[in-house]
Amino acid sequence: MAYTVVGKSVRRVDAIAKVTGKAKYTDDFSERNMLVGKILHSPYAHAIVKSIDVSKAKALPGVEAVLTYKDLPDIRYATALPGVIEAIATDDVDVAELKYGTAGHPFSLDESHRDKEDRRILTQKARFVGDNIAAVVATDALIAAKALKLIEVEYELLEPLTSPEAALKEGAPLIHDDSERNILSSNGYEIGNFEEAVKEADRVFEGEYETSIVQHCHMENQVSHAYVDSDRRIVIMSSTQIPHIVRRIVAQSLGISWGRVRVIKPYVGGGFGNKQDVCIEPLNAAMTLAVGGRPVRLELSREEAMIDTRTRHAFKFKIKTGINNDGKMVAIHISAISNTGAYASHGHSIAGSAGGKFRYLYPTKALKYDPITVYTNLPVAGAMRGYGTPQIFFAFESHIEDIAKKLNMDPVELRKKNLVEVGYVDPASKNKIMSCGIRECIEKGKELINWDVKKSLYKEQSGDKRRGLGMACFSYASGTYPVALELAGARIVMNQDGSVQLQLGATEIGQGSDTVFAQMVSEILGIPMYMVHVISTQDTDITPFDTGSYASRQTYVSGMAVEKAALEVKKKVLEVAHKLTDLPAHVLDLRDQYVVMKESGEQVIALEIVAMQSFYDRVNAQPITSDVSNNARINAIPFGVTFAEVEVDIKTGKIKIIEIYNVHDSGKIVNPLLAEGQVHGGVSMGIGYALSEQLLFDEATGKPLNNNLLDYKLPTIMDTPDIGAAFVEKEDPTGPFGVKSLGEPPIVSPAPAIRNAVLDATNVAFNRIPMNPQRVFEKFKETGLI
Amino acid sequence: MAYTVVGKSVRRVDAIAKVTGKAKYTDDFSERNMLVGKILHSPYAHAIVKSIDVSKAKALPGVEAVLTYKDLPDIRYATALPGVIEAIATDDVDVAELKYGTAGHPFSLDESHRDKEDRRILTQKARFVGDNIAAVVATDALIAAKALKLIEVEYELLEPLTSPEAALKEGAPLIHDDSERNILSSNGYEIGNFEEAVKEADRVFEGEYETSIVQHCHMENQVSHAYVDSDRRIVIMSSTQIPHIVRRIVAQSLGISWGRVRVIKPYVGGGFGNKQDVCIEPLNAAMTLAVGGRPVRLELSREEAMIDTRTRHAFKFKIKTGINNDGKMVAIHISAISNTGAYASHGHSIAGSAGGKFRYLYPTKALKYDPITVYTNLPVAGAMRGYGTPQIFFAFESHIEDIAKKLNMDPVELRKKNLVEVGYVDPASKNKIMSCGIRECIEKGKELINWDVKKSLYKEQSGDKRRGLGMACFSYASGTYPVALELAGARIVMNQDGSVQLQLGATEIGQGSDTVFAQMVSEILGIPMYMVHVISTQDTDITPFDTGSYASRQTYVSGMAVEKAALEVKKKVLEVAHKLTDLPAHVLDLRDQYVVMKESGEQVIALEIVAMQSFYDRVNAQPITSDVSNNARINAIPFGVTFAEVEVDIKTGKIKIIEIYNVHDSGKIVNPLLAEGQVHGGVSMGIGYALSEQLLFDEATGKPLNNNLLDYKLPTIMDTPDIGAAFVEKEDPTGPFGVKSLGEPPIVSPAPAIRNAVLDATNVAFNRIPMNPQRVFEKFKETGLI
Repeated sequence: MAYTVVGKSVRRVDAIAKVTGKAKYTDDFSERNMLVGKILHSPYAHAIVKSIDVSKAKALPGVEAVLTYKDLPDIRYATALPGVIEAIATDDVDVAELKYGTAGHPFSLDESHRDKEDRRILTQKARFVGDNIAAVVATDALIAAKALKLIEVEYELLEPLTSPEAALKEGAPLIHDDSERNILSSNGYEIGNFEEAVKEADRVFEGEYETSIVQHCHMENQVSHAYVDSDRRIVIMSSTQIPHIVRRIVAQSLGISWGRVRVIKPYVGGGFGNKQDVCIEPLNAAMTLAVGGRPVRLELSREEAMIDTRTRHAFKFKIKTGINNDGKMVAIHISAISNTGAYASHGHSIAGSAGGKFRYLYPTKALKYDPITVYTNLPVAGAMRGYGTPQIFFAFESHIEDIAKKLNMDPVELRKKNLVEVGYVDPASKNKIMSCGIRECIEKGKELINWDVKKSLYKEQSGDKRRGLGMACFSYASGTYPVALELAGARIVMNQDGSVQLQLGATEIGQGSDTVFAQMVSEILGIPMYMVHVISTQDTDITPFDTGSYASRQTYVSGMAVEKAALEVKKKVLEVAHKLTDLPAHVLDLRDQYVVMKESGEQVIALEIVAMQSFYDRVNAQPITSDVSNNARINAIPFGVTFAEVEVDIKTGKIKIIEIYNVHDSGKIVNPLLAEGQVHGGVSMGIGYALSEQLLFDEATGKPLNNNLLDYKLPTIMDTPDIGAAFVEKEDPTGPFGVKSLGEPPIVSPAPAIRNAVLDATNVAFNRIPMNPQRVFEKFKETGLI
Repeated sequence: MAYTVVGKSVRRVDAIAKVTGKAKYTDDFSERNMLVGKILHSPYAHAIVKSIDVSKAKALPGVEAVLTYKDLPDIRYATALPGVIEAIATDDVDVAELKYGTAGHPFSLDESHRDKEDRRILTQKARFVGDNIAAVVATDALIAAKALKLIEVEYELLEPLTSPEAALKEGAPLIHDDSERNILSSNGYEIGNFEEAVKEADRVFEGEYETSIVQHCHMENQVSHAYVDSDRRIVIMSSTQIPHIVRRIVAQSLGISWGRVRVIKPYVGGGFGNKQDVCIEPLNAAMTLAVGGRPVRLELSREEAMIDTRTRHAFKFKIKTGINNDGKMVAIHISAISNTGAYASHGHSIAGSAGGKFRYLYPTKALKYDPITVYTNLPVAGAMRGYGTPQIFFAFESHIEDIAKKLNMDPVELRKKNLVEVGYVDPASKNKIMSCGIRECIEKGKELINWDVKKSLYKEQSGDKRRGLGMACFSYASGTYPVALELAGARIVMNQDGSVQLQLGATEIGQGSDTVFAQMVSEILGIPMYMVHVISTQDTDITPFDTGSYASRQTYVSGMAVEKAALEVKKKVLEVAHKLTDLPAHVLDLRDQYVVMKESGEQVIALEIVAMQSFYDRVNAQPITSDVSNNARINAIPFGVTFAEVEVDIKTGKIKIIEIYNVHDSGKIVNPLLAEGQVHGGVSMGIGYALSEQLLFDEATGKPLNNNLLDYKLPTIMDTPDIGAAFVEKEDPTGPFGVKSLGEPPIVSPAPAIRNAVLDATNVAFNRIPMNPQRVFEKFKETGLI
């Protein structure tokens, strides 16, 4: 459909705020008098605290509180002024014994559907190097750092389990007493009957693939501050994707009523899923309680943030595929081991989610998925852009390429024989594919990279620098339905001049959601963008409830709430216009700040006059607002493809990306410029994932080796080629304005496309990423290329 | 009716915030980098600026901008970054030529009903000593003050008209070119036919009475700061009673769309009506525009605030009353001259409002009211607690006392013969008296002060110290209906534990409205007070629309919106409970955090379970909120009486108050302790009005003589007796929980009661207040008492 504002590359609503420095982030709200919190991390990957002596730390002038697992604040005491202020908690709660989960999922009324609760604010048992043993609150950061050094801890060392293999071996010590064989979960599925189907296949192929631990490296580290307000509530300002979930988890971690916590989210400097986890807020809350409610600031350094927040799960896959001679896959079996590190976080759901989103791309008669998520004594893996799909698609899109090679088939043609079609209903989720542009995406990608010409050009290569082409496809989802609740809220308040404020539960974290929401409102209400004022800050006290920014849900799921809110305002405007003009509301529409005749576009009455009437009509005054909630019980499946051209330096093992294109079917693109930005960011992240990024640990001790931005090889602008983005806009009937998700998808397919291009160039199949120069060099030696 | 929370003296919701210093007022939000604005005031009461040279001021290092009437900022230029930020204004507007009104009234769609627009942000014609001629914005206050001294102004002096008599004399210069004979308005009314009715009266009495100019003296002076945000809007934080009206008037003063202004109101340190006027915000907005949108802070000193904001109108009354021998008044004629000072502000409506509210007390066959509101070259009079009624009731309650004396009737009995009864319909407003406890108030007051015993005890006095008793009655209103729009809004958001946030358009300015609103919500939802979190800050971007805090409208008018919002939430809670239990919603009620059987009180399901269901039911999730607006088209009339006992020191002229009681029929009292506080404050203000307060001016030049808290005699705690407060709770069917107004009423009747007590003690009738020692001494000499 043709729209006025939707589909246009309008400027971000926060562009000026951000380039002028007026946009305020969490730390911009820090005040000079705030106390500073710092954390004592375990130096051992697996150990029990035998004794802990904080007396010297406590005695240091400027130290206001020292917390350990055994003396977390008594909430009732800390916040009570006897006779004046009642205590926050109504029951006696031993905070030190409370367990909670940190994953940023909506709460579930179904107990079996809740996240694993295996975390305490501070622990007696260190489960990874970096685990939180104690904490200090002091008047400044230097004193706090000094106090940490004065805490004397005696550890009993346990065997560090630094790999899933070690964790799974018979007799391995249990990382969590209540876990079986260090397995967090092993929930797979089988569609059809794999064993039967694979028997009928003409050929069977097997492959093994492996991904590494990487980290989000968002620009702004985790930071928060917390205090107890005069209403006796814990107020936390935090750089989070999920303020309403932070509220819940902080309350759970302290055993208090959820309404006793208020969370405020200002501008956020990136999250990529790492801020869809509640990492520092419970401890920050405990810190303020320990100092009588005074404000305490808690900020992680980069070195801390890289190991003490979350990482991306490393996966090992074994895939077995039965395929007929015509190229039709009939049976797929994927088994996976996911390394979730020391605590559950999102671990149990990420392996499942990967298998769920994979299902939409190549429907087969039989598909069996067997994931095991394993605890190890490494930093905690959690949500990260793609949520398991970069891993599974790296494996499968490498595997299908290997099959094509072995079958001597064009890998693109092989994929096309197996791609999903519109109308397909996923047998497990019951989601129906209502739109699908994957074939057009492939055609567009081939064209952009000049596939056919280059393919023949690079056919026979020798020499030190060899070029190759590769591609990979993916399917994704828009939000989490039907796995989790998809509730979103929006509120619109119209001013006297017809301009509006838009309040959202959904969080802007840099992705541009505020802008696309404003475009939707601008479109529906027929007002220019500058008349839509987005309240970018979320405050659990007043913002409509929304579970937050994750799962690529915002434009689709929260967009539905925005659309609903705007349509309600439009309805009210037209009702007032009807009262003023006697024209039936259904023949009217809104355009260019006017109520117009829907058909002819003829202007009937200025929006401003209607708005003024709504405020000041002596009899019928009723300011025009809407405050809606939408429970999305549907999902739209986006698709896409990466095409990459690489040049491999055989002697140095250096892989250079010559060209790379992502082509997405994400339904209607609300803002092409912002969409392109999403693709640039995702592909860049995918390039790092493919070629250079890996968080390294000493195998014997579990100590991190490169938890800093010098040694961790995030691609710089010098490593990043021009990235091409294109869109096939198959409007989905379920999405507002026909949108499907685009937030995470760009990260999913670059790594396998690059891997397949390297295979094309060198005939060497890398089944493990990153393909960094050392690993490439070793593999080339191994395969005899050098 | 019996309630659980309503009617109880619960602690103020902001008590802890205020006593611990956590409550943040406007200046607490000032930031170190803010520029400082200062104003150049006219030293002449009536003068024209012939020339103004700001070059020296502009040249002073640290001066960022100098504004005069002729170079107010070009809005288009100041806020535009060409090519990046569009200008705010869409039309060319000459701000220097824009006129606006400052009164905090709701806007009216009826042009004839709007406030007089006679003000410019800066003026070329000084109309009182203190008028705003120029302004400076500098990096700090010292530089700004120095710069003011460097501005060279040449004035052409005009005759200063320092009294209504001078202003009204033939040939007096016009203060405003478009005013006739310096008269702002002269809208009176006549009910019945006075001339005919008075002829039929048995006796006719006449009297003249006069009140003085006083000032509000709220603790927190006018203060605001303003900046242009990255959304290109002017954001103003201000200590105001009326944020939504500030938004409108600032926009009008600058000729921009109203939605381009955002106003935030934090805690306010008192207003008493003075902050129901938009005194400094337009200039503050102009200041930030003049410096490219950088934040500018504008705070008035006490000396400035006392003459450059608003004062209480001084009135002169002539009253003629026809009365029958049985004591029944049959015809009243009140003519009044109201001195409104240099600009209109509320002037035109205050004289009218006084006459309107007076009408309810003693209905007579004929009542004629002839007010004239006159411009003079004195500071601007505006809204102040009572809004004209302390003046008119001082006059009439003195007059009726004088009549009783002349008729040798008991003044209480005389009043009782004339008092209104339930069911009376005011012929002009059509307001119907639905509740009236004035007779019970009088009885209670008599009892409290031991009237009969003391009256006989003090009958025959001589000596230097003489005691006497006096009383005076009043009627008032609850809000402004039917004169103005009475729109109020409230929003409630329920949390997962059943606690709620309450967002109000109505402004807490110290009177305790947040607390009584929270009580109403607590009562209706059956949750304890600590589970109602009031958002005390108003922000025009997100707070429900409400015209603000004035006219004693909050508990009554805004209370209706709060009640409506809470009832909507209750309805939604019971609907969810119905879904969960199958019990019909109409048999259910809310009590003690439970859904209960309405009749038996038996607990059915915990509120928390209902709330959780509303958030997390996978199919029916719909968080429970309400966002309502209420247009109150009704008014309830409160009544009351003051009883005072005084001891007059004949030799010094010093009047000491021995006992004083105010007894109010304000309907249901939601919070007796807060109500008592209102009475204490109002009576204390009334004592100052009666005995000591007067803003003095040099008659020849109009220069203020005592615009500071040393020379202006505000009563101190040493001047204030124990004040007694009592209530006759005639629940009014129109008010939420039966309330009527109480905010302003306590100020209305103390002055005449004290005056009548002095008359009783000394036989000397003071027809002018304040009765300060000098005036008392002079009068005693004049009457031969000394």
